[in-house]
Amino acid sequence: MSIRVTVWSEFRHEKESELVRSVYPDGMHTVIAAGIKERLGDDCVVTTATLDEPEHGLTEAVLAQTDVLTWWGHMAHGDVSDEIVERVYQRVLGGMGLIVLHSGHFAKVFKKLMGTSCALRWRDDDSETVWTVRPGHPITQDVPEVFQVPQQEMYGEFFDVPQPDELIFISSFAGGEVFRSGCCWSRGQGRIFYFSPGHETYPVYYQPEIRTVIGNAVRWAAPVATNVYSTQSCPNSPLGWFK
Amino acid sequence: MSIRVTVWSEFRHEKESELVRSVYPDGMHTVIAAGIKERLGDDCVVTTATLDEPEHGLTEAVLAQTDVLTWWGHMAHGDVSDEIVERVYQRVLGGMGLIVLHSGHFAKVFKKLMGTSCALRWRDDDSETVWTVRPGHPITQDVPEVFQVPQQEMYGEFFDVPQPDELIFISSFAGGEVFRSGCCWSRGQGRIFYFSPGHETYPVYYQPEIRTVIGNAVRWAAPVATNVYSTQSCPNSPLGWFK
Amino acid sequence: MSIRVTVWSEFRHEKESELVRSVYPDGMHTVIAAGIKERLGDDCVVTTATLDEPEHGLTEAVLAQTDVLTWWGHMAHGDVSDEIVERVYQRVLGGMGLIVLHSGHFAKVFKKLMGTSCALRWRDDDSETVWTVRPGHPITQDVPEVFQVPQQEMYGEFFDVPQPDELIFISSFAGGEVFRSGCCWSRGQGRIFYFSPGHETYPVYYQPEIRTVIGNAVRWAAPVATNVYSTQSCPNSPLGWFK
Amino acid sequence: MSIRVTVWSEFRHEKESELVRSVYPDGMHTVIAAGIKERLGDDCVVTTATLDEPEHGLTEAVLAQTDVLTWWGHMAHGDVSDEIVERVYQRVLGGMGLIVLHSGHFAKVFKKLMGTSCALRWRDDDSETVWTVRPGHPITQDVPEVFQVPQQEMYGEFFDVPQPDELIFISSFAGGEVFRSGCCWSRGQGRIFYFSPGHETYPVYYQPEIRTVIGNAVRWAAPVATNVYSTQSCPNSPLGWFK
Repeated sequence: MSIRVTVWSEFRHEKESELVRSVYPDGMHTVIAAGIKERLGDDCVVTTATLDEPEHGLTEAVLAQTDVLTWWGHMAHGDVSDEIVERVYQRVLGGMGLIVLHSGHFAKVFKKLMGTSCALRWRDDDSETVWTVRPGHPITQDVPEVFQVPQQEMYGEFFDVPQPDELIFISSFAGGEVFRSGCCWSRGQGRIFYFSPGHETYPVYYQPEIRTVIGNAVRWAAPVATNVYSTQSCPNSPLGWFK
Repeated sequence: MSIRVTVWSEFRHEKESELVRSVYPDGMHTVIAAGIKERLGDDCVVTTATLDEPEHGLTEAVLAQTDVLTWWGHMAHGDVSDEIVERVYQRVLGGMGLIVLHSGHFAKVFKKLMGTSCALRWRDDDSETVWTVRPGHPITQDVPEVFQVPQQEMYGEFFDVPQPDELIFISSFAGGEVFRSGCCWSRGQGRIFYFSPGHETYPVYYQPEIRTVIGNAVRWAAPVATNVYSTQSCPNSPLGWFK
Repeated sequence: MSIRVTVWSEFRHEKESELVRSVYPDGMHTVIAAGIKERLGDDCVVTTATLDEPEHGLTEAVLAQTDVLTWWGHMAHGDVSDEIVERVYQRVLGGMGLIVLHSGHFAKVFKKLMGTSCALRWRDDDSETVWTVRPGHPITQDVPEVFQVPQQEMYGEFFDVPQPDELIFISSFAGGEVFRSGCCWSRGQGRIFYFSPGHETYPVYYQPEIRTVIGNAVRWAAPVATNVYSTQSCPNSPLGWFK
Repeated sequence: MSIRVTVWSEFRHEKESELVRSVYPDGMHTVIAAGIKERLGDDCVVTTATLDEPEHGLTEAVLAQTDVLTWWGHMAHGDVSDEIVERVYQRVLGGMGLIVLHSGHFAKVFKKLMGTSCALRWRDDDSETVWTVRPGHPITQDVPEVFQVPQQEMYGEFFDVPQPDELIFISSFAGGEVFRSGCCWSRGQGRIFYFSPGHETYPVYYQPEIRTVIGNAVRWAAPVATNVYSTQSCPNSPLGWFK
């Protein structure tokens, strides 16, 4: 019972920018997918989907066979159709794991699941130091106590998200900012992990520690409970219904 | 510096149902407002607003002068305009307190802030026992360790909301169900409290313990921090901006 | 890499009471151990330890080879030596999982890890209904939305523990009480789950749902992160130590 | 009904070190007390107590009249008697607020309330930048989004405490470390706030932002609920006891 992972990415920067293409010649999604495969091996089956495919590659059939979806978007959040957003959203409530990466903080579906603006501070060209503040959590397995991302966009507080159920990583930047860079939430039956390191012009998704974290997060977010909760429909439940 | 409270209610059941009118002849909002005034006295100024007023009584001017908004809705959630929902939502992120009552769990603005379906189980005609599970919290001030609501609609788990930041009350029902009946969350700079007891055909909002809880919640949710967080706009923050 | 489980129990009631012996003729620990084995199969290796063994069966060697410890105690909490309590406590901070069962709420090591009195209300001879309030969590895998324990001691709020990191189950009792019956916490690198159903005079640990929960909890609590955190010793960390 | 605050401090460094005396000539407690008075004015009555007074200045009578206790200790944690630790601990569970400052992270009573080692990394002589990550919380009232402490000991992660109920501040240091510098927990009926800035050789407790935070924390931690919870004694509660 391998985890079925769908790696979603805009795949637009790569088509428009020579610089981005030089870092991710086959698209960021292929590198993210390779990293997950590297970490989880036979425990996962990984496919990819991108914005410009029909239905953004996220058909009902694809999502029905996805245990965990990873999401990278940046320049084209507005081009994701509301219908697909609603579809992904419902699947998360129904139990699908969701890993939101870096600039995905402004993805429609992430904002819808959080209920907040998901705004933050940012600045190009800094370096990031990532600290583990929840040792023992599955997402930290084999992750060093601290590691550095040599070149990285700064994402800084205040990060307008609900207090995470579990805060896993906090980053600092050379400019002095801090950021809650690894956060867990549950929504409905689904588990969500946001991880901020990763940018289209830097080779972050090739870095071993980053791959370890994302692979761990996929395993953590994979659905395990098999019961269908009928309350999605807000049922009138007559006296004694459960006895 | 009294807390400026706006008590919002649909005020539709009262117009359509003789039964509801017999319990709340001047509308539920007037009783909820009186209860808050009874609890907070000169520490608050209370006004009301209802669905069928222009802009549902929630104009920009009204919201700009509201510290805490209480919300009761049931039969007409769909009649609340998306524009007003967005307006209330933005005010909560900006710091306004929001107290959501009973069937308000399905209000558009509550679902938008929670990011979940907010579905639950229900059954008419039961009785509710409310237990304090967070003694010492401001919302429990002068509230008994346990109290009963003699006649009440059953609201039961699974209640599809994010795990509350603080869980204050848990209720049981004669039929054996349980419910997280008093829950706190933060969203942006605003504080939200959901309290489930209260129904249009029962005199719940006249009950002293209920009034104490709602009054306490208003005080707890009142905004205290005066700083404006610029990150709502996701600013590019040049190196050294804060030094 | 099977999970190495040590099932600890007082094993005193069974020696002193005909009634308890009639329910658990070979001791409660053997039944709890069998239930875990039933659930996890080859994924675990289960041994047992009891109070009257040398060092309560919890030697340094035993604990060093224990991934998850389950704890049932009741009449003899005071007979557990402080030295062994400290040993177990340090192992939990170091990453060992701990599953505390029923009357174990008053175990020295649980109180030490919680930092509170862990007091509660109780009454013999009631029945318990267990509700899942965190569907999708690994501990709820294959657990029904609601199930009943036909005969059970009542444990009721206020349960004086820190707010759980994750609240998994809430129980109601025929007498109207409620109880946070399944709670998760982290302490140091270790994960702790408290589960209240289970009593020496009732056959609770034979019940399939109970076995499923405890087995799931063992899997959830098993340590996964392999890094040693040096901060246990509060090190002076010179500038640049991590670079 | 002013908040009755007792500011406790070791008052040992000041007697032994010329350097410390040059910064805090009348003891750190007098400066901390003055800061609270400056912030809360007539809303508080502030007294002080120190280690070398009889019963460390924390007699039953003093604690019975203390709403909020602030705690600064460093070189002499071991000299605090276990009897007084137990007395303070019981008062916190009973509702007294506790504000733990800087090196107080290793105070016996804090470790007892947390249930963890409370270890951290440290280094003398750095500078600290404090970020608000929970705007809207009472403890952040009038506190800037970010502020700096020019000279400060570095306290860095991993900070071995339970995940806070509410995380208010995160600090970064010039050396690149991060720290959860403002954390809220509840224990029993009491509220606890840990705030890391502050050191005996730097004039941190004269800084306006620091005084604002500590004063806010005192107000936040002041007990509000007046009910006595009988469950401290784990009572047998006969059927129908609450009806």
